[in-house]
Amino acid sequence: MPIKLSDIAAEFGGRVVGDDGVEISGVAKIEEAQEGEITFLANPKYTKFLNETKASAVIVPLDVTEAGDTPLIQAENPYFAFLKTVVLFHPPQPLIAKGIHPTAVIGEETEIGQDVSAGPYVVIGRRCRVGSGTVLMPGVVVGDDVRIGSDCVLHARVSIREKVILGNRVVIHDGTVVGSDGFGFAPEGGKYHKIPQVGTVVIEDDVEIGASTTIDRATLGETRIKRGAKLDNLIQVAHNCSIGEDTVIAAQAGLSGSTHIGSHVKIGGQVGFAGHLSVGDGAMVGAQSGIHKSVPSGQMVFGYPAKPHSEEFRIQAALRRLPQLLKEVKDLKQRIQGMEEALRK
Amino acid sequence: MPIKLSDIAAEFGGRVVGDDGVEISGVAKIEEAQEGEITFLANPKYTKFLNETKASAVIVPLDVTEAGDTPLIQAENPYFAFLKTVVLFHPPQPLIAKGIHPTAVIGEETEIGQDVSAGPYVVIGRRCRVGSGTVLMPGVVVGDDVRIGSDCVLHARVSIREKVILGNRVVIHDGTVVGSDGFGFAPEGGKYHKIPQVGTVVIEDDVEIGASTTIDRATLGETRIKRGAKLDNLIQVAHNCSIGEDTVIAAQAGLSGSTHIGSHVKIGGQVGFAGHLSVGDGAMVGAQSGIHKSVPSGQMVFGYPAKPHSEEFRIQAALRRLPQLLKEVKDLKQRIQGMEEALRK
Amino acid sequence: MPIKLSDIAAEFGGRVVGDDGVEISGVAKIEEAQEGEITFLANPKYTKFLNETKASAVIVPLDVTEAGDTPLIQAENPYFAFLKTVVLFHPPQPLIAKGIHPTAVIGEETEIGQDVSAGPYVVIGRRCRVGSGTVLMPGVVVGDDVRIGSDCVLHARVSIREKVILGNRVVIHDGTVVGSDGFGFAPEGGKYHKIPQVGTVVIEDDVEIGASTTIDRATLGETRIKRGAKLDNLIQVAHNCSIGEDTVIAAQAGLSGSTHIGSHVKIGGQVGFAGHLSVGDGAMVGAQSGIHKSVPSGQMVFGYPAKPHSEEFRIQAALRRLPQLLKEVKDLKQRIQGMEEALRK
Repeated sequence: MPIKLSDIAAEFGGRVVGDDGVEISGVAKIEEAQEGEITFLANPKYTKFLNETKASAVIVPLDVTEAGDTPLIQAENPYFAFLKTVVLFHPPQPLIAKGIHPTAVIGEETEIGQDVSAGPYVVIGRRCRVGSGTVLMPGVVVGDDVRIGSDCVLHARVSIREKVILGNRVVIHDGTVVGSDGFGFAPEGGKYHKIPQVGTVVIEDDVEIGASTTIDRATLGETRIKRGAKLDNLIQVAHNCSIGEDTVIAAQAGLSGSTHIGSHVKIGGQVGFAGHLSVGDGAMVGAQSGIHKSVPSGQMVFGYPAKPHSEEFRIQAALRRLPQLLKEVKDLKQRIQGMEEALRK
Repeated sequence: MPIKLSDIAAEFGGRVVGDDGVEISGVAKIEEAQEGEITFLANPKYTKFLNETKASAVIVPLDVTEAGDTPLIQAENPYFAFLKTVVLFHPPQPLIAKGIHPTAVIGEETEIGQDVSAGPYVVIGRRCRVGSGTVLMPGVVVGDDVRIGSDCVLHARVSIREKVILGNRVVIHDGTVVGSDGFGFAPEGGKYHKIPQVGTVVIEDDVEIGASTTIDRATLGETRIKRGAKLDNLIQVAHNCSIGEDTVIAAQAGLSGSTHIGSHVKIGGQVGFAGHLSVGDGAMVGAQSGIHKSVPSGQMVFGYPAKPHSEEFRIQAALRRLPQLLKEVKDLKQRIQGMEEALRK
Repeated sequence: MPIKLSDIAAEFGGRVVGDDGVEISGVAKIEEAQEGEITFLANPKYTKFLNETKASAVIVPLDVTEAGDTPLIQAENPYFAFLKTVVLFHPPQPLIAKGIHPTAVIGEETEIGQDVSAGPYVVIGRRCRVGSGTVLMPGVVVGDDVRIGSDCVLHARVSIREKVILGNRVVIHDGTVVGSDGFGFAPEGGKYHKIPQVGTVVIEDDVEIGASTTIDRATLGETRIKRGAKLDNLIQVAHNCSIGEDTVIAAQAGLSGSTHIGSHVKIGGQVGFAGHLSVGDGAMVGAQSGIHKSVPSGQMVFGYPAKPHSEEFRIQAALRRLPQLLKEVKDLKQRIQGMEEALRK
């Protein structure tokens, strides 16, 4: 059903420039949008598309005031405005039929809240609690003594191991494992002996975790992912780590044991952290970096091993001149030798 | 059942050198082959084994004309000839009993083609289509509105999320997730807000994907893996990426959002790509490289950050001489100082 | 139930310093321990906590002789003593109810040993053998012709593909895949053709494998993980690799095809190995290293590409001085030019 441009703008308090009665029937990326669709401009890389787009309207930052004849909606935060617009055209759909599928196996003394949906072949252990409105997709396996809050979504085949605690509105994508044993073995007599991993994992409210990520339980105590943190796919979080509030971690990054990440930290893909480190609030870690020592609050680091951004940048620039430098020094050496001989005469 | 050497050669149009009546009962690697077995030589690293092998015959490149008394089959493409030989001795076996297991749960309005096999505890959503001859191994979970072509194999516990489209002859290994949400969150008011991921994933014909790989759905539009591409295990493909025809990607590589890989590209293991890049047709990316900018067609790059092959090679060689260079420059400085003093007198 | 300090010390032959009658009710990390709890000091990083801990006793190395009034237990191997103490307070609990759940699907001609536990929705193929005391958690999928030893634990949703062999006391965490096809395709006519992967995987006794790890079957022959090896989460082991006895590999490391790792090797997180390499016994590989050539026994290597530890260390130190070196050489060049001009006069 088409929505008027003025109604879209009202969703996020945007200001229409041009005809606010245009009817919009969908949302698309700027380079793919067709007539009747709305698009947005948040990444400056895409500005070149602004005058070429076939879209019938564009959400833009406040400093963009015209784009030919195309009506605009100016927004303080165009990316967030885009989010609101997507929701308008794609209201959330239930992923699965309501209720508990008859094949779901639920252990003794487990309490299931109101309006919980559990798909086929879900397995929930003994003495668990599942909060109201939570959705467990097919094949989810929950161990004994687990607590899951309200309005969570556990996608297909997620594993929640024994004693783990999840807050409210936690979303976990397919195949992710929460609470697998930490990697702890004591060497003795030339062999490794397993250290029982008797701690747990706590995932606080509003955390989202991608697919096929692994979060190990603590040896003792807990591994903790704090409120609002967002983790991508294929990430490793080792035993006894903590990840701060509103921190984002891109795919395939890995944390070794007992490393603590502050709040509002941004971590790129494939970054690796050694163990027993701390990363301060608001730090930023470039993709693929290797972090071997603690990072102060607010610092930007990258590289392998990681260094402060400006230092690593200078080193990388210098590196490109290194082969030439070797030649130059060889040449200087000969000139010095020549002069030394001249002076000796 | 033994097969005559002449019959093996006929499979791929090879030319026998020596006794073509030798009976062969199996195929093995050159360093492990026993009497009665055939082996092959494709990797030059293994040439040393040619005269030592106990094999009763060896498939070799055209330029190898003898190996003592051992009969040979010369082939233009020994690796492909080896493939044909393996198939001869190991004709494909069905992975699972034919038909739909009674425990498979199939949603309303879903159409299942002829000769489809579905193992125990397979779950297929509503309004799906599954093409003829496709095999779904135990524990596979397919969301609503999914289309799967003919003669596909989805190994155990694969997740195909809602609305995803798979072509024909697509093979996906255990635990892989296709169509998980892209990692998209808009910051506003100090928190991250989820951007609904309403796009999808399209996997074209003849694509093979390894185990525990994750392929995210697009935010809008589609993530696309094109015909004949081959992806290994534990790979991350983010939202809105595309991967070209006949491109191969080794294990644990990762693509950030909206990165586009051309056709016939070769990507090594653990490579990381930043977002919004393009990689031209026929490019080659060395293992563990970090790709921060687009790569032209046909270019070989490696390094972190990646550079053209020859430049990175020179830098790596120069690096090994860097500690010595520091000493030399220190020495030159003293000699210069000495001369300057001498000249001043 | 509290345990006397003397009884704890007796578990591992430790020597009590101070009051050996203190009653201990639990075990905790040194920085978190409360009154009534015992803790341990193994990592020298935590020595600072020794005098601050609220613990009622501390397990320490032999060279620590006092910590204020806190009773100590001196142990030759404090980490191993800690392990024994954790077991004392946390005796192993069964993960799941005994017996075979009625929903487990077991194929024809499969033999199940005594005291095997299989959770809901476990699927075991045809002609398998499962040894006594082994536990299969919910959703485990085992292919045809698999042999599993005694006292193994396969956590939820593990895939064991056809023909794989597991020894005794093997532990595999959630979602891990053993026996997926090796990544082998022969190019011919501009396309890739799949090489049937007809080999298998053998996992020997006392191996532990983390969550979401992938171990590919051999093309021909076998991929082998030897006795006592310990693999963490999200690791890739390609076709035809072998990993030696008592070798430990941290999370997200990856081995390319036909690479052979010796025994007692230590491999850090996110390390990548090229194919067809060998790594000698007792070698150590630093986190995130890229291994492009074989590593001799006992050698410590790190870096990308990896070099012997001392060489890489010197290069890394020199690198930090490189930007300054460029300036110095520029300065020297000018001084040389000045002198050359002076001499020319």
